[in-house]
Amino acid sequence: MTATFELLGIGNAIVDVIARCEETFLAEHRLAKGAMTLIDASAAERLYAAMGPGVEMSGGSAANTLAAFASLGGRGAFIGKVADDQLGAVFRHDIRAAGVAFDTPPARGGAPTARCLILVTPDAQRTMNTYLGACVTLTEDDVDEARVAASTVTYLEGYLFDPPAAQAAFRKAARVAHEAGRQVALTLSDPFCVDRHREAFRGLVKEGVDILFANDREILALYEVERFDEAVAAVREETTIACLTRSEKGSVIVTAGGVIEVAAEPTQVVDTTGAGDAYAAGFLWGLVRGRPLAECGRIGSIAAAEAISHVGARPMVRLADMVADRLAA
Amino acid sequence: MTATFELLGIGNAIVDVIARCEETFLAEHRLAKGAMTLIDASAAERLYAAMGPGVEMSGGSAANTLAAFASLGGRGAFIGKVADDQLGAVFRHDIRAAGVAFDTPPARGGAPTARCLILVTPDAQRTMNTYLGACVTLTEDDVDEARVAASTVTYLEGYLFDPPAAQAAFRKAARVAHEAGRQVALTLSDPFCVDRHREAFRGLVKEGVDILFANDREILALYEVERFDEAVAAVREETTIACLTRSEKGSVIVTAGGVIEVAAEPTQVVDTTGAGDAYAAGFLWGLVRGRPLAECGRIGSIAAAEAISHVGARPMVRLADMVADRLAA
Repeated sequence: MTATFELLGIGNAIVDVIARCEETFLAEHRLAKGAMTLIDASAAERLYAAMGPGVEMSGGSAANTLAAFASLGGRGAFIGKVADDQLGAVFRHDIRAAGVAFDTPPARGGAPTARCLILVTPDAQRTMNTYLGACVTLTEDDVDEARVAASTVTYLEGYLFDPPAAQAAFRKAARVAHEAGRQVALTLSDPFCVDRHREAFRGLVKEGVDILFANDREILALYEVERFDEAVAAVREETTIACLTRSEKGSVIVTAGGVIEVAAEPTQVVDTTGAGDAYAAGFLWGLVRGRPLAECGRIGSIAAAEAISHVGARPMVRLADMVADRLAA
Repeated sequence: MTATFELLGIGNAIVDVIARCEETFLAEHRLAKGAMTLIDASAAERLYAAMGPGVEMSGGSAANTLAAFASLGGRGAFIGKVADDQLGAVFRHDIRAAGVAFDTPPARGGAPTARCLILVTPDAQRTMNTYLGACVTLTEDDVDEARVAASTVTYLEGYLFDPPAAQAAFRKAARVAHEAGRQVALTLSDPFCVDRHREAFRGLVKEGVDILFANDREILALYEVERFDEAVAAVREETTIACLTRSEKGSVIVTAGGVIEVAAEPTQVVDTTGAGDAYAAGFLWGLVRGRPLAECGRIGSIAAAEAISHVGARPMVRLADMVADRLAA
């Protein structure tokens, strides 16, 4: 059956609140630099009160990937839970305006829409503090089986292991996708997220993931090894394709057939938020369009370069044009 | 009495929703390019649905001026009406985080916090569409007399003539300021706003304004003249100081003593939103600190150059540092 969607993302539906800060601010507030930390409502309130003026933009890892995928010209859909409030309306507007199908009904009367307080230090590194809010109400009932079955790849965001009921949604999506003869992709999201859910991640990677995305720290955390080559050897046994991103060193695509090294695209780094999300979008767009793996990685690098060249995780230019220009150059 | 605040702004409390668009979008939706148009809730909903993905940032003309004034190191306060909702909380957080005192109680249970849908075309021009929401509930009761009396300059935003009850707040603020021996500044905000309220503006300028800010189109509209020199002659009779901004041609400072021409600061223009607001902040900061008028204008130009060099109206760098660097160069 022809797929209705080329990519379906399932993840946390989050609005980012981005502010610049000095290094000293991270120390004062005991924030783990470069990581994503979960915070509760009262901690979110305290941190927000202490932060400088912010810019609000729709975010969420898989949602960012879908927005970038649509900007590349891909047909995408997203499943995630917002509340019935103003920030939920912002999230819904933005993902639809980006050209992504989004029909998950909002949660009513409970916690507000999730937000991620992102602090960007002068070195362009982002430190994320997430209040999950309405995301914790996502359940397997929100996973539309017909939509999963009609999507070439279902892409799962590792952060979604944090909201308790969402793991069941994950497993259901992976099962339905495979039963329909589709592929399942997963991103590990964050080394601390891997630490929190290592056994669940290992089981899912081994049994249900065809395409894995991870950065170097995440893949070392998953296999509890110290050297990158050990992690490469381990992941090669367990997935069809693993894309391992290494910041300015580019990425490595690992398959049974070998290892492909992909260079990073040169750019001026302003804010690294969303680099991995954009890379996954570019890689998967190439993959579903039948491009060779090395080119898929290159497209991922180009999309990532765009993401880190400005404040915020979502693309600011039409990625389809940027990729066409860069590949032709 | 020593002033507690150097600048008190009274204006609409608005959250900006900024999106890029092509010229064709303005034509399709019959939007008046470069102007500020008032829209109702249903028109706002329709336009928002049609717009691309947005970035939310606190805005409002006088509020932007106060944020820039604080970034220059000035002591400022703001009066304006938000609703008791998420966007209202964003506005309150941002203006306080910018270092501006803000204590106007939010409106409860009525219209939501105001928003301005701003479309930025590839030529960096902004076209603004404002849904006033909770701003229409600002009344003279919100004007804290003690705060007005304790502020060196009270700065009134012309757009505040649009919410019906706010005109009374304006007049009260001007009266209280003058009774306390303070100064009153006014910005005309927009040529269409001048057209809507010409007689009221003329009366206020003549009777109650010491420092007037206007761009060339606004001052021509106020006096219904066709040539800039006619407008200069007219305004000279009616205010102590008039700052007339002329985009890339810089500004002209008109006093009884003469006319001072100020050059625009060179910069790359990304989004012109907030240029006039930042100019007023720079000029007034120089004025309350006793700088010569030509230097006040130069500081205004530097602040405006910063505002137009990025998306959004509020400063992205510490203006105090930028001004010190530029004045020393």
